[in-house]
Amino acid sequence: MAASNSQEGNDYEFRFSSDMTLEDIRASHRYFCKERNWGKYHSPRNVLLALVGEVGELAEIFQWKGEVKQGLPEFTEDEKQHVGDEISDVLIYLVDLAAQCHIDLPTAVHNKLQVNAKKYPVNVTNGTFQKYSAYGEDRSLVGAAVPPERAREEGDGSE
Amino acid sequence: MAASNSQEGNDYEFRFSSDMTLEDIRASHRYFCKERNWGKYHSPRNVLLALVGEVGELAEIFQWKGEVKQGLPEFTEDEKQHVGDEISDVLIYLVDLAAQCHIDLPTAVHNKLQVNAKKYPVNVTNGTFQKYSAYGEDRSLVGAAVPPERAREEGDGSE
Amino acid sequence: MAASNSQEGNDYEFRFSSDMTLEDIRASHRYFCKERNWGKYHSPRNVLLALVGEVGELAEIFQWKGEVKQGLPEFTEDEKQHVGDEISDVLIYLVDLAAQCHIDLPTAVHNKLQVNAKKYPVNVTNGTFQKYSAYGEDRSLVGAAVPPERAREEGDGSE
Amino acid sequence: MAASNSQEGNDYEFRFSSDMTLEDIRASHRYFCKERNWGKYHSPRNVLLALVGEVGELAEIFQWKGEVKQGLPEFTEDEKQHVGDEISDVLIYLVDLAAQCHIDLPTAVHNKLQVNAKKYPVNVTNGTFQKYSAYGEDRSLVGAAVPPERAREEGDGSE
Repeated sequence: MAASNSQEGNDYEFRFSSDMTLEDIRASHRYFCKERNWGKYHSPRNVLLALVGEVGELAEIFQWKGEVKQGLPEFTEDEKQHVGDEISDVLIYLVDLAAQCHIDLPTAVHNKLQVNAKKYPVNVTNGTFQKYSAYGEDRSLVGAAVPPERAREEGDGSE
Repeated sequence: MAASNSQEGNDYEFRFSSDMTLEDIRASHRYFCKERNWGKYHSPRNVLLALVGEVGELAEIFQWKGEVKQGLPEFTEDEKQHVGDEISDVLIYLVDLAAQCHIDLPTAVHNKLQVNAKKYPVNVTNGTFQKYSAYGEDRSLVGAAVPPERAREEGDGSE
Repeated sequence: MAASNSQEGNDYEFRFSSDMTLEDIRASHRYFCKERNWGKYHSPRNVLLALVGEVGELAEIFQWKGEVKQGLPEFTEDEKQHVGDEISDVLIYLVDLAAQCHIDLPTAVHNKLQVNAKKYPVNVTNGTFQKYSAYGEDRSLVGAAVPPERAREEGDGSE
Repeated sequence: MAASNSQEGNDYEFRFSSDMTLEDIRASHRYFCKERNWGKYHSPRNVLLALVGEVGELAEIFQWKGEVKQGLPEFTEDEKQHVGDEISDVLIYLVDLAAQCHIDLPTAVHNKLQVNAKKYPVNVTNGTFQKYSAYGEDRSLVGAAVPPERAREEGDGSE
């Protein structure tokens, strides 16, 4: 089956395997740096430039490829591994940057998803609940922002 | 108390508030795009360029600031909110990119943290356990890289 | 003498040595690619991602440095050479990108400098001409933004 | 005629219109900043982050486009103008960064083109001279590095 997140009619959906949290990543990276006394180098702009460096390494993997299909079918296993490594490096520095800035990343992401949902409204008659139900209330961070009772009444927490 | 993740002697450590997972972010963003039939635009290189765009918006907030202190004490509340918004946008696209590439991001991050821990060894006589104990067993993804028996011998309770 | 472009009272000004043009760079890079039959890889988005990759390599040189002084006095000769190499790589891809997009870069830069000069007006009583004269008639692209007649009166022969 | 820099057999070659030099851009931008007393903000890392911001704005124009053809035939005039503006912004900050670092950009570019030419050798039997002659010695910055007499003997200044 050709995996695709973008063919709207396609039931297949790629999912992540585990429940790794943003706090798991922050604490593990912090532990790694503290063990090595590297924390002193992690000022906000240092980490931001390190993040830009890793984004550059990620871009390099895709630079001569032309358009690339979902699931990277044309990539070798090594290339796919490399993509995963570089996305991870970007993520680790991004989480570190939030921590250096004392920004509560889960709250910031939660709020941003809500703002986006309001900014780009969906026609309510558009089978929202059916789609929503495929995720479940406990999965929707958007829904999670709604008081349980309102969410229940509406059956849709998407604003 | 002046918060700081980088003063090694400082007991204070900034932490994220919730257990938001990478899969929470993926599923919520996927739900958001599916509701709007936007999935078709989310090819790997499109999302990668969108990510680069958001990294640029993040950099713009810091560009004329000179060196910036941890916790962003000189930033206004609006600026700090803006930083959180842009870090969130980068994170959402980064998670989306991993999903478009069918890369299991939690596994990739876990492996990268292990590789980094082996790549930059810590002097074993260096009070690792004491430092580790501040984090708790269920938090260290790095610790998971140590074979259980070795970990036990060393008194490194890192899983 | 401490070189500085930013101390307004300082007479010293760093200048480039030669009259290398944007077209020199375009033609030389084009010649280099044509000799190797590499042109076919240079689609706009491929070159854009290559540019992002080089910006990342440039950022990596500065990432753990904290604030850096003009002229890079704390950098080793090798590091300074490295900065020059990476800035050059970014420039070569930027010129290539403009060519791939069939954008006349000299005209685009000229127009942008004019737009910026109008967007951020300077108090006319503020010794502009005196400052201008320090650059020489044939050098100011900004001067080209001045209506020909005013330019002629002022002896501003910048077009 | 379909313009293309990448079809090797195609005689058409897009060229820039004028002889704007890197020093023209440096002096004009420097003049612009000096008039406004903005020089004090232009530290190397500030300018580097401003550059990253402009690269982000450039990427945003291409982010939802999928693969894009040379000459941007599918772009509106406004979009093409926008691309030219953003490429110009990146170039202006790149030139500024070199100046802040006291790096002689023409020399750095010249050397980088030479290093690349040696790094990726061309089969000498491969009509190099014929291709080279299409540009002329005075166009090749690579050639320009060779003492005139050696260049003349070889009829090719490409190393």
